[in-house]
Amino acid sequence: MKITRYRKEDDITYALGATVVMEYLLHDTENVKGIIIHPDFRAEDTKERITSICTENKIPMVTEEKPFNILSQKENCFVIAVVAKRQATITDGNHIVLVNPSNAGNLGTIMRSALGFGIENIAVITPAVDPFDPKTVRASMGAAARVRVELFESFDDYRRRFPNNNFYPFMLDGSSKMQHTPIEENFSLILGNEATGLPREFSEIGQPIRIEHTHNIDSLNLPIAASIAMYEATRNNW
Amino acid sequence: MKITRYRKEDDITYALGATVVMEYLLHDTENVKGIIIHPDFRAEDTKERITSICTENKIPMVTEEKPFNILSQKENCFVIAVVAKRQATITDGNHIVLVNPSNAGNLGTIMRSALGFGIENIAVITPAVDPFDPKTVRASMGAAARVRVELFESFDDYRRRFPNNNFYPFMLDGSSKMQHTPIEENFSLILGNEATGLPREFSEIGQPIRIEHTHNIDSLNLPIAASIAMYEATRNNW
Repeated sequence: MKITRYRKEDDITYALGATVVMEYLLHDTENVKGIIIHPDFRAEDTKERITSICTENKIPMVTEEKPFNILSQKENCFVIAVVAKRQATITDGNHIVLVNPSNAGNLGTIMRSALGFGIENIAVITPAVDPFDPKTVRASMGAAARVRVELFESFDDYRRRFPNNNFYPFMLDGSSKMQHTPIEENFSLILGNEATGLPREFSEIGQPIRIEHTHNIDSLNLPIAASIAMYEATRNNW
Repeated sequence: MKITRYRKEDDITYALGATVVMEYLLHDTENVKGIIIHPDFRAEDTKERITSICTENKIPMVTEEKPFNILSQKENCFVIAVVAKRQATITDGNHIVLVNPSNAGNLGTIMRSALGFGIENIAVITPAVDPFDPKTVRASMGAAARVRVELFESFDDYRRRFPNNNFYPFMLDGSSKMQHTPIEENFSLILGNEATGLPREFSEIGQPIRIEHTHNIDSLNLPIAASIAMYEATRNNW
């Protein structure tokens, strides 16, 4: 299998590690174009499950060491899936909206929480980190195989598609505290960039919310803020 | 200034980047043993603030490129603090208790959330990742300069010191849902290792709690679970 270092412009990405690979094989099967097994892969159970899914779905499998040197810096990666990028379209309902997120690990961690809290639509306003970056996919622990992520060129583009959603921008000076703000269904939880947060004009959109914390920190880490928002928004569903 | 790659057994660690360095200069001043400035550091305001604190506190400053090659893989790091490790003792009150955490970035992210939610005592049960690792310090965004982190050889050691705290172990099958569990003051929010969670026997300790999520994910990311726990435990304080 010819493997090159990942590039954003390619139409394939890579899922690294058994956990992530299994999620793709189970939930995005038709987009798995090949599986690469490390010669030292010893987890026989997992190898058997992978082999059986690949056989059934006619997915090519090879055993080869070199791709691991090209794609994986982590020592504990013994299986890689080559995955065609799935251009998803988000659907009506509850959304997470990320405005200009810049860190691949953060985006992946948010995907994982979103899938956990049953929010399977993620809108990403560009410029933004590449949602197909193998670092994003790995941080998502495979949630990337299941959530829908759609890129929008501007927040206005997003809003034109979902004009009736209830907008909740998360801002350090949001006028309403998270724990005192009822979140209505068909919500859009909107969070800004890691370093800069949301632009000022979002304070005029919907109901701005703040997650109160001491002044000893500048802000919460982005996936933490996003996950607390999702936890609160869905707390009555469980 | 003689700089070597960080080792766990050394009595100093390194704070990388202006944000983290400033937190140490402001909040753990006496432990800052030196400041290294990159020849290309251009943020004159920050440089002036650092210089003035260093002058006032007789902290040596040097301008040198080489330490950055040894200590920093990130391009956007232009200042480093050499910091003596501060062996802290946690005090009575509210605690986060981390049983065998294994990832430096996760521990740092939890420190940042803990400081944000006003929980300044963190007990770490060994074996565990090094709380002074520069990766932990950096992920904490400098919260490491302010929270108290104490290592314990076992959970029993910790419990003997704080027998009257209210224990809340977080487990996937905890008997009470987070949002329906009142958290009493002098709480200990107890979370397990990233891959394995808490050992079974914690289900007999205090009030085990679960943060409900769909079966589409195995678990939430550790700092996410810890931060949701801290957010809930302090939600009535704000």
